Amino acid sequence: MKFIRFEMAGKAEIGILNKEETGILPLSRIYPGFGVTIMQQVIEGAGENESSQLWDAYNGETDCPQVPLEEVKVLAPIERPVHDILCVGVNYRDHREEAAGALADFKAAPEAVYFAKRAIRILGSGEAIEARLDLDDQLDYEVELAVIIGKEGKDIPREKAEEYIFGYSIFNDISSRKLQNRHGQWFRGKSLDTYSAMGPVILHKSALPFPVEVDVRSYVNGEKRQDSNTRLFLADIPKIIEDLSKGMTLEPGDIIATGTPAGVGMGSNPPRFMKQGDEVICEIPPIGRLVNRVETYFPGRT
Amino acid sequence: MKFIRFEMAGKAEIGILNKEETGILPLSRIYPGFGVTIMQQVIEGAGENESSQLWDAYNGETDCPQVPLEEVKVLAPIERPVHDILCVGVNYRDHREEAAGALADFKAAPEAVYFAKRAIRILGSGEAIEARLDLDDQLDYEVELAVIIGKEGKDIPREKAEEYIFGYSIFNDISSRKLQNRHGQWFRGKSLDTYSAMGPVILHKSALPFPVEVDVRSYVNGEKRQDSNTRLFLADIPKIIEDLSKGMTLEPGDIIATGTPAGVGMGSNPPRFMKQGDEVICEIPPIGRLVNRVETYFPGRT
Repeated sequence: MKFIRFEMAGKAEIGILNKEETGILPLSRIYPGFGVTIMQQVIEGAGENESSQLWDAYNGETDCPQVPLEEVKVLAPIERPVHDILCVGVNYRDHREEAAGALADFKAAPEAVYFAKRAIRILGSGEAIEARLDLDDQLDYEVELAVIIGKEGKDIPREKAEEYIFGYSIFNDISSRKLQNRHGQWFRGKSLDTYSAMGPVILHKSALPFPVEVDVRSYVNGEKRQDSNTRLFLADIPKIIEDLSKGMTLEPGDIIATGTPAGVGMGSNPPRFMKQGDEVICEIPPIGRLVNRVETYFPGRT
Repeated sequence: MKFIRFEMAGKAEIGILNKEETGILPLSRIYPGFGVTIMQQVIEGAGENESSQLWDAYNGETDCPQVPLEEVKVLAPIERPVHDILCVGVNYRDHREEAAGALADFKAAPEAVYFAKRAIRILGSGEAIEARLDLDDQLDYEVELAVIIGKEGKDIPREKAEEYIFGYSIFNDISSRKLQNRHGQWFRGKSLDTYSAMGPVILHKSALPFPVEVDVRSYVNGEKRQDSNTRLFLADIPKIIEDLSKGMTLEPGDIIATGTPAGVGMGSNPPRFMKQGDEVICEIPPIGRLVNRVETYFPGRT
């Protein structure tokens, strides 16, 4: 089941896609009077009772009027995250090798690398990356599988990790490589406004066998740049959840970006960074395609 | 003027300290019917009109009944930050030198170092640090001046930085040195639950001449460990606000921890980390003293 956030008649709504992926069943029609406009409420309320009503609607067992997908504007499933996005660095062997060549003073850490990425607003599929090429012209893409936490947890053993997951999405960890290099820690080069994109949907965890093995790909202007599979993770999802939750509470709505495989722009020789007008597509087949275009933005000119 | 968050009759309230610092003027009495329990609302609402009423009360020009300070429990001024805490790394020359000796693979970055620190809840003065010595016994303190952002801003030039500040507090950036070292990026070793403490108050910016030159000190079990002054910053507050806001929106309630001077536990030879029962005091004289005790905590034993 795929959760989608969308705009209809100027208002944000949340729904689920029908099986054919042609129409949306808005939650406001499945649960009349339930005025949910942010995904956080859906994630926090995702208990057994509500799920059965949702599944009945999804399976066509209730007579819920649908909205044609093509008539709505798709929004980021989570627009404003509950905390900064939790990111895993260099989590595919091939990307670790290309990063070692491209990042100043890069040295493989003895354990998995975790950092935070700030986003006051996450872009949805179809929205423009407002590229600040005036600050840093080394603009890069990173396709990643995003794990959405569904339940509060701390000191979660790896065997129980799946219980704490709500679902999965596609994340583009848009990066400013000069800023990432110059400021020592990666946070600054990862946290510019509009440098986080996620969507087009959140796939409920029940749709994917665990451990998750999905293809992870990106394309720039139609040319394939990244093509890997999450089975090649250095730290797998149970390990990531076990690690991060050691002494640190994970909360419903937390987003974990699980790292990107080889093929980013800084990994090419010479590097191939994104420029004005480029279209980047991040693709994870069971979830969908996240499409964003680069629009150069200068402060003072909106 | 000092803003204080406190518990009275089991309820969180916000007030200002009287001039003698013996009593609190609760905002609920200055503005009857104004049920403010979180500082975020005060910061966002800090406009000209409200300020004049506050100042009248502070100056004893209105007849507002006070609560004796000794009768309340002090709470963290901001308990749940709007985003992860924005931190400046190695921002005093002497601490940069001790860090270079103690942190694995440390190399001075060409520009100021920024990283994020997660806190689902910030400790107030008097609350216990729940030390996870089972995960990492290299538990360290870092006294820092915290800048609280008061107004949304982006691409803020250094000359205008002060306009965007609401006030100042004292921050203890409690750190797990093994985790900080082992995971490459610092986020993980900085973000354990209860490893952020702030308070006891937020000092309104009007109380400090700009640029801010205040003493910054820490004590462990009464022994002075850190003693410096913010005039020794490598990157000063205008520079930090200018840097961080380049392409990244700062929001009201954002907390910027401006870095710690020399004298942390990892800087001693041999290192002197905190252990069960230790009391750490962070002191910035015009603001006050932030006191926290280390209580070793084991998962499963609460």
